[in-house]
Amino acid sequence: MRRICFTLQVRPDRLDEYRRRHAAVWPDMLAALRTAGWHDYSLFLRDDGLLVGYFLTEDLDASLDAMEATEVNARWQAEMAPFFADLPGGRPDRGFLVLEEVFHLS
Amino acid sequence: MRRICFTLQVRPDRLDEYRRRHAAVWPDMLAALRTAGWHDYSLFLRDDGLLVGYFLTEDLDASLDAMEATEVNARWQAEMAPFFADLPGGRPDRGFLVLEEVFHLS
Repeated sequence: MRRICFTLQVRPDRLDEYRRRHAAVWPDMLAALRTAGWHDYSLFLRDDGLLVGYFLTEDLDASLDAMEATEVNARWQAEMAPFFADLPGGRPDRGFLVLEEVFHLS
Repeated sequence: MRRICFTLQVRPDRLDEYRRRHAAVWPDMLAALRTAGWHDYSLFLRDDGLLVGYFLTEDLDASLDAMEATEVNARWQAEMAPFFADLPGGRPDRGFLVLEEVFHLS
Protein backbone atom coordinates (compact mmCIF):
# COMPACT_ATOMS: atom_id res chain seq x y z
CA MET A 1 0.00 0.00 0.00
CA ARG A 2 1.12 3.53 -0.66
CA ARG A 3 1.56 6.00 2.21
CA ILE A 4 -0.16 9.33 1.50
CA CYS A 5 0.51 12.53 3.42
CA PHE A 6 -1.34 15.73 2.64
CA THR A 7 -1.77 19.19 4.14
CA LEU A 8 -4.57 21.71 4.38
CA GLN A 9 -4.96 24.92 6.33
CA VAL A 10 -7.79 25.21 8.87
CA ARG A 11 -8.89 28.70 9.79
CA PRO A 12 -7.33 29.45 13.19
CA ASP A 13 -10.65 30.79 14.51
CA ARG A 14 -12.40 27.48 13.77
CA LEU A 15 -10.00 24.97 15.36
CA ASP A 16 -12.18 24.01 18.32
CA GLU A 17 -15.20 23.37 16.17
CA TYR A 18 -13.08 21.45 13.68
CA ARG A 19 -11.89 19.20 16.52
CA ARG A 20 -15.45 18.66 17.74
CA ARG A 21 -16.72 17.75 14.30
CA HIS A 22 -13.92 15.24 13.80
CA ALA A 23 -14.57 13.58 17.13
CA ALA A 24 -17.99 12.69 15.73
CA VAL A 25 -17.62 12.03 12.02
CA TRP A 26 -20.86 10.62 10.57
CA PRO A 27 -20.90 6.81 10.56
CA ASP A 28 -21.87 6.76 6.88
CA MET A 29 -18.83 8.92 6.08
CA LEU A 30 -16.58 6.49 7.95
CA ALA A 31 -18.16 3.57 6.12
CA ALA A 32 -17.67 5.31 2.77
CA LEU A 33 -13.98 5.90 3.48
CA ARG A 34 -13.47 2.26 4.41
CA THR A 35 -15.22 1.07 1.27
CA ALA A 36 -13.20 3.50 -0.84
CA GLY A 37 -9.95 1.97 0.43
CA TRP A 38 -8.73 4.59 2.92
CA HIS A 39 -6.81 2.69 5.62
CA ASP A 40 -5.20 3.82 8.87
CA TYR A 41 -6.37 7.38 8.19
CA SER A 42 -5.37 10.05 10.70
CA LEU A 43 -5.73 13.82 10.82
CA PHE A 44 -3.31 15.85 12.93
CA LEU A 45 -3.78 19.52 13.79
CA ARG A 46 -1.14 22.10 14.66
CA ASP A 47 -2.01 25.12 16.79
CA ASP A 48 -1.74 27.47 13.82
CA GLY A 49 -4.29 25.45 11.83
CA LEU A 50 -1.92 23.36 9.76
CA LEU A 51 -3.76 20.09 9.15
CA VAL A 52 -1.81 16.97 8.22
CA GLY A 53 -3.55 13.90 6.84
CA TYR A 54 -1.96 10.46 6.60
CA PHE A 55 -3.48 7.32 5.18
CA LEU A 56 -2.65 4.13 3.34
CA THR A 57 -4.25 3.19 0.07
CA GLU A 58 -3.68 0.87 -2.84
CA ASP A 59 -4.26 3.65 -5.38
CA LEU A 60 -4.63 7.34 -4.54
CA ASP A 61 -6.66 8.34 -7.58
CA ALA A 62 -8.99 5.37 -7.18
CA SER A 63 -9.50 6.15 -3.48
CA LEU A 64 -10.42 9.76 -4.30
CA ASP A 65 -12.65 8.79 -7.20
CA ALA A 66 -14.48 6.23 -5.06
CA MET A 67 -15.25 8.91 -2.46
CA GLU A 68 -16.26 11.34 -5.19
CA ALA A 69 -18.88 8.84 -6.30
CA THR A 70 -20.61 8.81 -2.90
CA GLU A 71 -23.43 11.10 -1.88
CA VAL A 72 -22.23 11.37 1.73
CA ASN A 73 -18.85 12.74 0.68
CA ALA A 74 -20.42 15.66 -1.17
CA ARG A 75 -22.46 16.51 1.94
CA TRP A 76 -19.46 16.15 4.27
CA GLN A 77 -17.10 18.21 2.10
CA ALA A 78 -19.69 20.97 1.73
CA GLU A 79 -20.00 21.17 5.52
CA MET A 80 -16.23 21.16 6.00
CA ALA A 81 -15.32 23.71 3.32
CA PRO A 82 -15.95 26.80 5.53
CA PHE A 83 -13.38 25.53 8.05
CA PHE A 84 -10.53 25.91 5.58
CA ALA A 85 -8.45 28.86 4.43
CA ASP A 86 -7.06 29.18 0.91
CA LEU A 87 -8.91 26.21 -0.49
CA PRO A 88 -8.09 25.66 -4.15
CA GLY A 89 -11.20 24.39 -5.92
CA GLY A 90 -13.39 25.16 -2.91
CA ARG A 91 -13.46 21.58 -1.62
CA PRO A 92 -11.14 20.07 0.99
CA ASP A 93 -11.00 16.72 -0.79
CA ARG A 94 -9.79 18.34 -4.01
CA GLY A 95 -7.74 21.19 -2.56
CA PHE A 96 -5.29 19.20 -0.55
CA LEU A 97 -1.63 19.06 -1.38
CA VAL A 98 0.08 15.66 -1.46
CA LEU A 99 3.62 15.70 -0.05
CA GLU A 100 6.60 13.77 -1.38
CA GLU A 101 7.84 10.90 0.78
CA VAL A 102 11.62 11.41 1.12
CA PHE A 103 12.36 8.73 3.73
CA HIS A 104 10.83 5.54 5.03
CA LEU A 105 11.92 3.01 7.62
CA SER A 106 9.56 0.10 8.05
CA MET B 1 1.20 1.77 19.46
CA ARG B 2 0.80 5.50 19.40
CA ARG B 3 0.80 7.41 16.11
CA ILE B 4 3.15 10.40 16.20
CA CYS B 5 3.11 13.25 13.70
CA PHE B 6 5.59 16.10 13.89
CA THR B 7 6.67 19.05 11.77
CA LEU B 8 9.92 20.87 11.12
CA GLN B 9 10.91 23.51 8.60
CA VAL B 10 13.68 22.73 6.12
CA ARG B 11 15.46 25.71 4.56
CA PRO B 12 14.01 26.10 1.07
CA ASP B 13 17.51 26.48 -0.42
CA ARG B 14 18.58 23.06 0.96
CA LEU B 15 15.69 20.85 -0.18
CA ASP B 16 17.57 18.92 -2.85
CA GLU B 17 20.45 18.10 -0.56
CA TYR B 18 18.02 17.14 2.20
CA ARG B 19 16.35 14.69 -0.18
CA ARG B 20 19.69 13.22 -1.22
CA ARG B 21 20.83 12.74 2.36
CA HIS B 22 17.59 10.99 3.28
CA ALA B 23 17.83 8.63 0.33
CA ALA B 24 21.05 7.36 1.94
CA VAL B 25 20.62 7.48 5.71
CA TRP B 26 23.52 5.75 7.46
CA PRO B 27 22.81 2.07 8.18
CA ASP B 28 23.81 2.52 11.83
CA MET B 29 21.29 5.37 12.15
CA LEU B 30 18.54 3.13 10.73
CA ALA B 31 19.54 0.36 13.10
CA ALA B 32 19.48 2.76 16.06
CA LEU B 33 15.97 3.95 15.16
CA ARG B 34 14.71 0.38 14.94
CA THR B 35 16.26 -0.53 18.28
CA ALA B 36 14.80 2.61 19.85
CA GLY B 37 11.29 1.57 18.84
CA TRP B 38 10.58 3.84 15.88
CA HIS B 39 8.28 1.91 13.55
CA ASP B 40 6.86 2.69 10.11
CA TYR B 41 8.73 6.00 10.13
CA SER B 42 8.22 8.31 7.13
CA LEU B 43 9.34 11.83 6.31
CA PHE B 44 7.35 13.87 3.82
CA LEU B 45 8.53 17.14 2.28
CA ARG B 46 6.45 20.00 0.89
CA ASP B 47 7.87 22.32 -1.77
CA ASP B 48 8.13 25.19 0.71
CA GLY B 49 10.26 23.12 3.10
CA LEU B 50 7.55 21.97 5.49
CA LEU B 51 8.71 18.57 6.72
CA VAL B 52 6.19 16.14 8.19
CA GLY B 53 7.29 13.10 10.15
CA TYR B 54 5.05 10.16 11.00
CA PHE B 55 5.94 7.10 13.03
CA LEU B 56 4.53 4.55 15.43
CA THR B 57 5.97 3.94 18.85
CA GLU B 58 5.01 2.39 22.15
CA ASP B 59 6.18 5.42 24.12
CA LEU B 60 7.28 8.74 22.60
CA ASP B 61 9.52 9.86 25.44
CA ALA B 62 11.20 6.47 25.64
CA SER B 63 11.78 6.41 21.88
CA LEU B 64 13.42 9.85 22.02
CA ASP B 65 15.48 9.01 25.08
CA ALA B 66 16.70 5.78 23.51
CA MET B 67 17.95 7.71 20.46
CA GLU B 68 19.49 10.35 22.70
CA ALA B 69 21.57 7.62 24.31
CA THR B 70 23.19 6.61 21.01
CA GLU B 71 26.38 8.06 19.63
CA VAL B 72 25.19 7.87 16.03
CA ASN B 73 22.17 10.06 16.73
CA ALA B 74 24.33 12.90 18.02
CA ARG B 75 26.45 12.73 14.85
CA TRP B 76 23.39 12.55 12.57
CA GLN B 77 21.54 15.42 14.27
CA ALA B 78 24.64 17.60 14.16
CA GLU B 79 24.91 17.02 10.41
CA MET B 80 21.20 17.68 9.87
CA ALA B 81 20.86 20.82 12.00
CA PRO B 82 22.06 23.25 9.27
CA PHE B 83 19.25 22.08 6.98
CA PHE B 84 16.58 23.48 9.27
CA ALA B 85 15.17 26.95 9.80
CA ASP B 86 13.92 28.19 13.17
CA LEU B 87 15.15 25.23 15.16
CA PRO B 88 14.31 25.55 18.86
CA GLY B 89 17.14 24.03 20.87
CA GLY B 90 19.38 23.76 17.81
CA ARG B 91 18.70 20.05 17.21
CA PRO B 92 16.07 18.59 14.91
CA ASP B 93 15.31 15.72 17.28
CA ARG B 94 14.52 18.14 20.11
CA GLY B 95 13.05 21.03 18.11
CA PHE B 96 10.21 19.23 16.46
CA LEU B 97 6.62 20.00 17.21
CA VAL B 98 4.26 17.09 17.90
CA LEU B 99 0.79 17.57 16.44
CA GLU B 100 -2.49 16.59 18.04
CA GLU B 101 -4.34 13.67 16.45
CA VAL B 102 -7.93 14.85 15.94
CA PHE B 103 -9.26 11.94 13.88
CA HIS B 104 -8.42 8.32 13.24
CA LEU B 105 -10.05 5.62 11.16
CA SER B 106 -8.33 2.27 11.34
